[in-house]
Amino acid sequence: MKLIENWFSERYSENLQLSFRVSDQLLSVKTDYQRIDVFDTYDFGKLLAIDGTVQLTEKDEFVYHEMITMFPFYHMDKPPRKALIIGGGDGGVAGQLIKMGLESVINIEIDNQVVEVCKKYFPDLADSFTSPKVDLRIEDGIKFMKSSAEKFDLIIVDSTDPEGPAEGLFGQDFYRDVKNRINPGGIVVAQSGSPFYQPKALKMAYNSARSVFKHSIVYTAFIPTYPSGFWSFTMSSDSEMKPSGEEIKSGKYFNSSVLKGATQLPEFVKVILSE
Amino acid sequence: MKLIENWFSERYSENLQLSFRVSDQLLSVKTDYQRIDVFDTYDFGKLLAIDGTVQLTEKDEFVYHEMITMFPFYHMDKPPRKALIIGGGDGGVAGQLIKMGLESVINIEIDNQVVEVCKKYFPDLADSFTSPKVDLRIEDGIKFMKSSAEKFDLIIVDSTDPEGPAEGLFGQDFYRDVKNRINPGGIVVAQSGSPFYQPKALKMAYNSARSVFKHSIVYTAFIPTYPSGFWSFTMSSDSEMKPSGEEIKSGKYFNSSVLKGATQLPEFVKVILSE
Repeated sequence: MKLIENWFSERYSENLQLSFRVSDQLLSVKTDYQRIDVFDTYDFGKLLAIDGTVQLTEKDEFVYHEMITMFPFYHMDKPPRKALIIGGGDGGVAGQLIKMGLESVINIEIDNQVVEVCKKYFPDLADSFTSPKVDLRIEDGIKFMKSSAEKFDLIIVDSTDPEGPAEGLFGQDFYRDVKNRINPGGIVVAQSGSPFYQPKALKMAYNSARSVFKHSIVYTAFIPTYPSGFWSFTMSSDSEMKPSGEEIKSGKYFNSSVLKGATQLPEFVKVILSE
Repeated sequence: MKLIENWFSERYSENLQLSFRVSDQLLSVKTDYQRIDVFDTYDFGKLLAIDGTVQLTEKDEFVYHEMITMFPFYHMDKPPRKALIIGGGDGGVAGQLIKMGLESVINIEIDNQVVEVCKKYFPDLADSFTSPKVDLRIEDGIKFMKSSAEKFDLIIVDSTDPEGPAEGLFGQDFYRDVKNRINPGGIVVAQSGSPFYQPKALKMAYNSARSVFKHSIVYTAFIPTYPSGFWSFTMSSDSEMKPSGEEIKSGKYFNSSVLKGATQLPEFVKVILSE
C-alpha cells in the first residue's frame, strides 16, 4: 500500500476516511488471499491492516479481544474447556482463551502469512501459538466445519468483514455446520460489523445465526480504530444465555458493568435487527 | 478553512484525523469567539464545525441531542417544566426540550453568529428559536449564572470542548453557580468529551460536578462523527437520580435499553474517574 505523506488512511466509504500518521511502514505483502500491511503509527503503536482495513492496533486491540472472549465466557453455565477459533491468525483470541483457563483451543486460520506477520510484528499476541494448549491449523474454516467431527464448548468467529474470504462465515450454511460442532450449553460468537456503516453485515450474521440457533444476542463495544467506533458481536446458543451472577474478572474494557450494558442496544440498532 | 482536494479533516491529534469528502463549502467565518465552518458532505449531509471540530452533522446529530436531553429527563421524579441551556446555539437541544413538553426554556449562547449560521443552514434545528417557549439570549453563560436569580429544573451545558470560550464551563466555580440556579430535585447535565482521547476533560467535568453536587453519574453514547466515536456526559443532582420505571418514549437512539445501559462504563473509563 502506498502512503500519502506518511499517512495511512482507511476508507470507510468513498467519502469518509480515518487516517493515522505513520512513523514506519514495516510490511506490505500480497498473499493468496489478501493484502497485509503493518505500520508503526504515532498514536496507536503498531497497526495491522488487511485489504486496507484496520484489524488491530497495539493500543486498542484489548477491546475487541476481551469482548469476543470474556463476554460469551460469562454467559455460560459452566466454564468452557474446549474452544474453536475460526480466523484469529493474530493470536489475540487464543491468548485470551488461555488466560481464561481454556484447556484446549483449535485455531483455524486460512492465511499462513497472517500468522507469520503477527509472529514477527505482534509477538505479544502471536506468542499464544507457542502454548501446548493451542493447536494452530492453516486451513479453510468453512471446510473444517464440514469435515471435522470434533465438538466444542465455545466457537469464536474472528473474521474479516463479509467481503473477500470471510463472506461465507456470515451465512446460514456456515451456522448449520457450527451447530453440529457445538456441545450442549455451548455458545458461538462472531464479530458482526459496525451497526452504523455495515447494517447489512450485522443483519446477515444475526439472521443466519437465529435461523439455526434458539437464542441469539447482539451486543456492542466501543472500538476507536474500527469504522464509526461502534462495533457489534452476535452470540448464539441453543441454551438460554444469561449474564453470570458470579464474580467477574475485569479486563481493561470488560467488567461486570459492561456485562450488563453491552446488550442494551440503541433504537437504530433494534430497528436494523427487526427489519 | 482551506480544504485539501475537497476533504474536510478534523484533527484528533497531530497524528490522527477523520476526513469527510465535501460537495460544497457553504461558509467559513471568523467570529469574535471562534471560527465557524459549514460544509455539505456526501455521507453526513450538512456539517457544522467550530474551530475545526465537528459540532454536528445532519445525519447523526440525533444521538447527541437525544442523549443530552432525554437521558436526564427520564431520571427525574417529576417532569421538568423550566430549563436552561448554556451553549446550544444550533437550537437542537431547545427543540428536543420543547418536544418533551418543557414549558419554558432559556437558551444562553455566547456567539450570535452560531445562531445566525444555524438559522440559515440548519433550519430544522434552529427553528426551535421561533417557539414562544424558548427565550434565546446572546450572552456569556458563565456571567449569566452569576447574575441571574432564576431557578430551573433542568440545566443543560451544551458546550464546545474545554479549550476556548467553553473552558470555564468545566470548572468547579461554574458548578457552584449552577447549584444556586437549580430547583430541588433538579439535574444539571454537561457533555464531557471523549473518554478515550480527552480523559482530562471528562475528569475535570466529573470532579467539578461531584465536588459541588451530592450525586454525579457519567454516561456514554456512540457518536460516529465525534473523536473516537465514543462520548461522555456527566449528570449531577443533590437528589438521587434513578432511571424512570415509567413508559419511555424512544428516539432514534435513546430508548429504555439505553436508559439502562448507558451508565454501564467500561473498565478504562472507571479507572479515569477513580484516579
